[in-house]
Amino acid sequence: MRALRRRIKELRVDALLVTHLPDVRYLCGFTGSNAALAVTATRAALFTDGRYTVQAKEQTRSARVAISEVSALADACAWLASTGVKRAWFSPEHTSVSGLAKMREAIDGRKKNFFTPLEEPLAASLRMVKDADEVAAMEKAALLGCSLFDELLGFIEPGLAEIAVAAELEYAARKRGAEGMSFETIVASGPRAALPHGHASAAKLPRRGFVVLDFGVILNGYCSDMTRTVHLGEATREERDAYEAVLEAQQVGVAAVRPGATCGEVDEAARGVLRQSALEEYFTHSTGHGVGIEIHEAPRIAKEQETVLRPGMVVTIEPGIYIEGKFGIRIEDMVVVTERAQRVLTPAPKALIEL
Amino acid sequence: MRALRRRIKELRVDALLVTHLPDVRYLCGFTGSNAALAVTATRAALFTDGRYTVQAKEQTRSARVAISEVSALADACAWLASTGVKRAWFSPEHTSVSGLAKMREAIDGRKKNFFTPLEEPLAASLRMVKDADEVAAMEKAALLGCSLFDELLGFIEPGLAEIAVAAELEYAARKRGAEGMSFETIVASGPRAALPHGHASAAKLPRRGFVVLDFGVILNGYCSDMTRTVHLGEATREERDAYEAVLEAQQVGVAAVRPGATCGEVDEAARGVLRQSALEEYFTHSTGHGVGIEIHEAPRIAKEQETVLRPGMVVTIEPGIYIEGKFGIRIEDMVVVTERAQRVLTPAPKALIEL
Repeated sequence: MRALRRRIKELRVDALLVTHLPDVRYLCGFTGSNAALAVTATRAALFTDGRYTVQAKEQTRSARVAISEVSALADACAWLASTGVKRAWFSPEHTSVSGLAKMREAIDGRKKNFFTPLEEPLAASLRMVKDADEVAAMEKAALLGCSLFDELLGFIEPGLAEIAVAAELEYAARKRGAEGMSFETIVASGPRAALPHGHASAAKLPRRGFVVLDFGVILNGYCSDMTRTVHLGEATREERDAYEAVLEAQQVGVAAVRPGATCGEVDEAARGVLRQSALEEYFTHSTGHGVGIEIHEAPRIAKEQETVLRPGMVVTIEPGIYIEGKFGIRIEDMVVVTERAQRVLTPAPKALIEL
Repeated sequence: MRALRRRIKELRVDALLVTHLPDVRYLCGFTGSNAALAVTATRAALFTDGRYTVQAKEQTRSARVAISEVSALADACAWLASTGVKRAWFSPEHTSVSGLAKMREAIDGRKKNFFTPLEEPLAASLRMVKDADEVAAMEKAALLGCSLFDELLGFIEPGLAEIAVAAELEYAARKRGAEGMSFETIVASGPRAALPHGHASAAKLPRRGFVVLDFGVILNGYCSDMTRTVHLGEATREERDAYEAVLEAQQVGVAAVRPGATCGEVDEAARGVLRQSALEEYFTHSTGHGVGIEIHEAPRIAKEQETVLRPGMVVTIEPGIYIEGKFGIRIEDMVVVTERAQRVLTPAPKALIEL
């Protein structure tokens, strides 16, 4: 909240209305599913509803808590108007067109531009750089993820349904304390591995072929994210070459993560390796993304992205190739930018594993 | 898609831009995480990105598929503009303020009100009434949920961590074919049961006290949702009386679900029972909500809601009471409105269970 107030002052913003739940959590600790946080230079108030009376009291710091009868959003707006500030800024990315209409209705009588879109994604910018406690929390989540991969290696075998692999993984995650998975677990085997987002299906693992395992846990509110691709049976020469190319792209991508580099440069580092191997056309997505309270956060590690990496940012590096009807391969680590370079938070083996 | 086109004609809407992912799935079958569906009176096109090239081709019906290099949203807008329609409608509830700015930018040169907010939540209205196939799918999901509760009864005991109960439940769900859970599983025991949304924590189940179990699975894309509250050890007279009051409220609420009733009347039916028992002040949320592709859909079963129930609507009926520092109780079923009355989709026992 202090960092937010500093930025508010710098930007000469009178007041801020925060409605994106991960931002609310980040700023005041409240994790409920309905919340509007109103912040001025000197005061802050969190509005939620009666389901969260007890929880909001327990969790919220740096803001007073108010329970709304009808609409937390409307009450937050009315409160902001009552503080005497001239304007309140909001995030246009996280405010719906009808939400804005409701906000304006709630301060009936005030001039129309009381609510002003804030072009800089303020909370997202703050959240992009993790402090030491956050990095420690994310490392714990990442290591839990690695331990799950390790366990899976002893479990995976031909004939198992992809969904059974996901079930085993998620059960182990829960037993080790995860609050949940950070996204729908991907287990994509055989030709299904060519679906970059192939959620675990009823398909059975084949005798021979790649299995892409992409999963993450939520631990203490922070997400992990990692991908490993293993091979059932012996890989063909073509499969092995493709795997080595992806692995090299991934390693070069990781090495490019350092303070001062732009996100576009990191993307190009990984992409360039696949270009040299004549595999670029099969790399159909961006190289990575920020991760934290949300599984996808700023910055984006993609073509031409000019965001400059700074110590404390945590990003994924996850090049992959997808050859329709044949196979798919993706390798992904979480990487934190350090003072001088980077550190991988997901130290699970990456050399080709044939099971 | 046919029903949508009928409504479009009735409303004299030239074209529609659909960006809310559950709506996209409902209308054309595509389940990817990035999509914009553009629909005119005679044509439809789904825009997504390169991660979904294969999947989009496999899943999409009633629309042609286009893969966007940069922005699926912008391409969908440009396509709509190119069809010659005068206006395109969008959902203001599911379009962000910055999304609308991007949409306008994408049709650069056209007049500003090419994109017009559609006040009637068109797709949501269509989705509210389930057809026979959808009801069958939801019943399967609901029965899977019931079988999990049944299994839990043999597992729950004092000393287990709430999170271990959730792990067991979710593992069983996965093994029985669930794609995932429809929301973060709630296991709230002892005084934590007074948190209406108390996610499973590391807290241990007490020797004596209520345990609220609120969970749902996703099966074939449809969500289930149910809550049962069991008691560890023997309930006190106060606990038993409170349980009976909640159960009566729930049963009266279920019985009030019928074609022609308003959602507000159903809410009042349940709420009235708790009022008579002098427990109304502890019932701090609404009585229920629609459920389907999303865990929370239209209609809301809440005070003064005037939506009239129609055959095929599926709603939850879930009154509860929450007494801070003492205990909480909630009982929830999924109920489908039939031609003459209603049918409960979650036939798990509701009489007080002491374990």
